[in-house]
Amino acid sequence: MNTNLLRSVVYIAALCGLYLSTAMLIPAMVDLYYGDPHWSVFTVSAAMVGGLSVTAAMATRGPPPAFSKRMGFLLVNVLWATFSLVGAVPLYFSELDLTFAQALFESVSAITTTGSTVLVGLDDMAPGLLVWRSLLQWLGGIGIVALGLFVLPFLRVGGVSFFKMESSDIGDKPFARIATFTRAFVAIYVAITLICMIAYDIFGMSHFDALNHALTTIATGGFSTHDASFGYFDSYALRWIATFFMTVCSLPFSILIVFFIKGRLDALRDPQILVFLAYLGAFAIAAALYNHLRNGVDLPLALSHSFFNFSSILSTTGYASEDYTLWGPFAVAAAFFATFMGGCSGSTAGGIKAYRFVILFNIILTGMKKLIYPNAVYSVRYGNQIVGADTQRAVFLFFSAYIFIWVMGSLAMALAGYDFLTASSAVITALSNVGPGIGSLIGPAGNFAMMADPELYILSLAMLLGRLEVLTVMVLLMPMFWRS
Amino acid sequence: MNTNLLRSVVYIAALCGLYLSTAMLIPAMVDLYYGDPHWSVFTVSAAMVGGLSVTAAMATRGPPPAFSKRMGFLLVNVLWATFSLVGAVPLYFSELDLTFAQALFESVSAITTTGSTVLVGLDDMAPGLLVWRSLLQWLGGIGIVALGLFVLPFLRVGGVSFFKMESSDIGDKPFARIATFTRAFVAIYVAITLICMIAYDIFGMSHFDALNHALTTIATGGFSTHDASFGYFDSYALRWIATFFMTVCSLPFSILIVFFIKGRLDALRDPQILVFLAYLGAFAIAAALYNHLRNGVDLPLALSHSFFNFSSILSTTGYASEDYTLWGPFAVAAAFFATFMGGCSGSTAGGIKAYRFVILFNIILTGMKKLIYPNAVYSVRYGNQIVGADTQRAVFLFFSAYIFIWVMGSLAMALAGYDFLTASSAVITALSNVGPGIGSLIGPAGNFAMMADPELYILSLAMLLGRLEVLTVMVLLMPMFWRS
Repeated sequence: MNTNLLRSVVYIAALCGLYLSTAMLIPAMVDLYYGDPHWSVFTVSAAMVGGLSVTAAMATRGPPPAFSKRMGFLLVNVLWATFSLVGAVPLYFSELDLTFAQALFESVSAITTTGSTVLVGLDDMAPGLLVWRSLLQWLGGIGIVALGLFVLPFLRVGGVSFFKMESSDIGDKPFARIATFTRAFVAIYVAITLICMIAYDIFGMSHFDALNHALTTIATGGFSTHDASFGYFDSYALRWIATFFMTVCSLPFSILIVFFIKGRLDALRDPQILVFLAYLGAFAIAAALYNHLRNGVDLPLALSHSFFNFSSILSTTGYASEDYTLWGPFAVAAAFFATFMGGCSGSTAGGIKAYRFVILFNIILTGMKKLIYPNAVYSVRYGNQIVGADTQRAVFLFFSAYIFIWVMGSLAMALAGYDFLTASSAVITALSNVGPGIGSLIGPAGNFAMMADPELYILSLAMLLGRLEVLTVMVLLMPMFWRS
Repeated sequence: MNTNLLRSVVYIAALCGLYLSTAMLIPAMVDLYYGDPHWSVFTVSAAMVGGLSVTAAMATRGPPPAFSKRMGFLLVNVLWATFSLVGAVPLYFSELDLTFAQALFESVSAITTTGSTVLVGLDDMAPGLLVWRSLLQWLGGIGIVALGLFVLPFLRVGGVSFFKMESSDIGDKPFARIATFTRAFVAIYVAITLICMIAYDIFGMSHFDALNHALTTIATGGFSTHDASFGYFDSYALRWIATFFMTVCSLPFSILIVFFIKGRLDALRDPQILVFLAYLGAFAIAAALYNHLRNGVDLPLALSHSFFNFSSILSTTGYASEDYTLWGPFAVAAAFFATFMGGCSGSTAGGIKAYRFVILFNIILTGMKKLIYPNAVYSVRYGNQIVGADTQRAVFLFFSAYIFIWVMGSLAMALAGYDFLTASSAVITALSNVGPGIGSLIGPAGNFAMMADPELYILSLAMLLGRLEVLTVMVLLMPMFWRS
């Protein structure tokens, strides 16, 4: 491994650390405004991290190396590790009295937009801490969309290279395109957050709650300012507003950009969007009917809770409006499997993702046709496009690696003493960046406060693995990666 | 669909029904010997089925059609359906007072060598009924090996075509080869059953128990003559003998044949065998250490139970020597995931199977190398052979279809009211043809007697799907299959 490469990776990470340390001044100002003494924790953390970052950046300045795939992989890993560590600093030094593993878990859960929490007593917590959690999720959302749009296609991870933007969608010069695109993306991300915040505010949230929940809705993160999560707001309107924004933010941002810039909605014909909306509808309607028929809940109420909670799981947000695992065994099984699935590519949603299911389904269909007519030629298609063997292999690779990590993680959690459902749902909710698991401990009515440090490290690793599409991290384990 | 083709499929099925009806005379004789009045049930059933089969065969006689892949698929499905129905007849007419769904479930569980049972009170049951169950499993074992060796490679299902025997292994003329092979296989299957029976007998089973357990061990079926399954025999020696035979019968029979005919053991270098033995050892040793450290069980005792129960799960036999789910959460999780895995190709074992894991692992490894050096050429290998894109796709197809069926089945069982672990383990134990599930109802200490008819139909279908490598059945659902 080239030392020049390592040096420049550290340099970029230090710059990002510096940016994130300045972001700590926002919660500091919030605490000052509300008169909470926690402002000093944020100021001191900002100074510490900022100082360290500047020092590291100074020590590693130098000419930029040629960008290689290897540098890409290393950079992504180092960046997300840096974000996680920096995010944990003010939490660790706060008066919450967290272990380092707990602070790191909370920070990783924020940065990866997962939304699992080790904190209890959110309703009375220092406002700056709540804003810091929400802000980290919101920034993590930007990071992950950028990663999905610009970096992963270049690294060819998990079949996502299939979704290179057509240059005709925006402009025609590649760099102009990236710049236009980034500006457009950030503008829309900010705009949609503001719209969501205003909607929450109008329909009954306090300003503070509206801000925090808008930040974590748009990032499909799921951190709340209340222990009861979205159940605190017992309102039809708020549930449907959140459902709308969680669903929209599970769609590819590229398509939202094209829609906002060019006013074209024809991009909605993308198969992954239809498939995502179809399985969201199927899960939500099935669970609502089940809740209605089995428990006698009024259908409109059952529908609003069902759409809210299943769009929360499938968008990998992780809010809960009530404990849906009490609806009955079908709801438990549906929530369990939904936790694997996720949203669309190029969004803030995690999970296996809809486009992989589209390709998977077409591979199954084509394979069965080929069993009947072995000599005929059938192409695997994604909409009108042909999916090449490389992309098929990449999808398979991702799918297998995902399940492999889930199995290994579940065994590790079971070894730590958790029952099967808690163990396996904890790992998959982390890997898919959803938030709640299943079971009384970590289910929609629970949290991760009772978990011991080793388990929190396992789950933190799973969240990062899932967020970086698994293979981006696993590739670092290959000795070949480190050879010159 | 060609009527000549349908006709000849019915003709072959009728002949098989006739054979199976004559097999009913064996339990009839057993009941006569023991003076049990059930002999008449078997005689009447034999006459009924025999008569019906002869009539059907007469009505559908005619010139054989050209053998096509379509006929192959149809034939396999019709044959296994016939076996299941015919096997159920004496059970349904017996004094056990079973519903049709229960009799069918028991018969399907036998023919597919699964070993799940709806019966309680095995210890005092008519001996002919016990022999009938064991005999069906033993014959089902022959059927499945024949299917794996001769039919599935031709149908190219699930990547198994990869395992065409090299002609140099036995002879060089294809038909001479099949004849030699079949004779050798049946001879070895009978021989190994006798050896197993004698070993069981010497080490303390009654003659009757030794016969029945030998029949169901060699078929990796798992029906027992006691409600307590193998736990009835509290003997180190018997546990290790069973472990040995279950493990041997999870290895490819082709390799046993080459070993017995040519005395060559070098075929043991087949990667799937090493991988199967490796994961069997890993599961068994891990669970034994866990049981030893957590519950203070003596290590030799823990090892004998652990090896017995994990070779029982991984060989998809399904005996239990004790309720291993009580060892602790790690044992539960390990047993759950082991239920997916299965043995080697060309054996009586079911599940996803070791060779697919070998290919899967090599696809992951090659894929990660390609992420680092995208322009280098890496072949996916199985031992010294290169695995082509077609086989990779077939493995992917199988893997996805397997998981898809598992998810759908689990949702259906959850809808019927079973908790997640019971629902999902019932489906996977059926699909992998293992036997026991997890949970107090259907776990190693339970059985399927309490399940209602609709669930028994779902699980019967899952057993058949799993036994016929899923795609062989799913292909019938394609409208294209039925078009001329």
